[in-house]
Amino acid sequence: MQAEDDTQARHADKMRKKQAAQAKIMVTKTQEKGLLIVHTGKGKGKTSAALGMVVRAIGHGMKIGVVQFVKGAMTTGEKTVFDAFPDQVEFKQMGEGFTWDTQDRARDVAAARTAWDEVRRMVADPSYHMVLADELNIVLRYDYLPLDEVLAVLTARDAMKHVIVTGRNAPDALIDAADLVTDMTMIKHPFRSGVKAQAGIEF
Amino acid sequence: MQAEDDTQARHADKMRKKQAAQAKIMVTKTQEKGLLIVHTGKGKGKTSAALGMVVRAIGHGMKIGVVQFVKGAMTTGEKTVFDAFPDQVEFKQMGEGFTWDTQDRARDVAAARTAWDEVRRMVADPSYHMVLADELNIVLRYDYLPLDEVLAVLTARDAMKHVIVTGRNAPDALIDAADLVTDMTMIKHPFRSGVKAQAGIEF
Repeated sequence: MQAEDDTQARHADKMRKKQAAQAKIMVTKTQEKGLLIVHTGKGKGKTSAALGMVVRAIGHGMKIGVVQFVKGAMTTGEKTVFDAFPDQVEFKQMGEGFTWDTQDRARDVAAARTAWDEVRRMVADPSYHMVLADELNIVLRYDYLPLDEVLAVLTARDAMKHVIVTGRNAPDALIDAADLVTDMTMIKHPFRSGVKAQAGIEF
Repeated sequence: MQAEDDTQARHADKMRKKQAAQAKIMVTKTQEKGLLIVHTGKGKGKTSAALGMVVRAIGHGMKIGVVQFVKGAMTTGEKTVFDAFPDQVEFKQMGEGFTWDTQDRARDVAAARTAWDEVRRMVADPSYHMVLADELNIVLRYDYLPLDEVLAVLTARDAMKHVIVTGRNAPDALIDAADLVTDMTMIKHPFRSGVKAQAGIEF
């Protein structure tokens, strides 16, 4: 049976049908618009996938603003790459490191506000094609910023501007407002077997 | 109640406990090793998250091999960025476009074999710190390559080498062999509301 399924004629027929079905779908996809993208979930890849989109946008000559809300204390590999495209990427690390390192709510709220002001500026500035608010969900989770204010800014953005928000526990209202939402679901994590965070993977 | 929870003393106490718990966990994470990483699932972000890891690895001075199995026919934004680091990234686009465009199984199998030979070479070459086999899962799904051979090569790799495999429908045996597996779960996709694939997002 398998040998028969694999014959060239059947394969060509199956692929032709797939191709036709795909073409039919694509014809209905005509709209271009700036997307509100959310990467959430407990698995790895939320920030990495946003970085991948930034890389693609760089390749297309776009200007991108990146604001990291909670990783400011870490040295990140991505900064080296962004620095190679200074006219295209503006990178702001505003956080004081992970929030449980500060133990000072007032300082966390102030840091979140400073970072958010950068996001607002980039969203309002027509020269930016894409804005990445990295780990903004964490800040919202701790109520460091009012959700209503964040949603108002993000949904009132220019029609062609892409905004990416990452972090666990995305608020339901943000998911409702978004165009593209992916939940990075953890299937297996090496921390569980004693492997530490490594260069090139976690940072 | 909310106001009480938000007091500085309570916040500091909560964060101090979190910090202590985190430190206790981190102390047990001492191992460094090359990871076999799988990004699968129906959601977006599988290739993007792998690209993000490549970007981090570039930033840490690593050498990375990237082999795209099924996107050869597309112009990709990431190539521009990789080209800025020619000593660090070797990028091979081996595919003939999505497989349902070819309708020729023998040609698909040959293209998969050519791409796989590149992955094998990079995995065997100690100068590469990371190898990305993009959409290899698709090729395995169509039985264009023998799974046993792929697993044998990936699991016999050098102890410090990272390998990332992306694509829907990762085989169970690959997931079993992997150290880090994330399922990109689709919550919302803009295609559903008529938005087409856009520069900076899909390519």
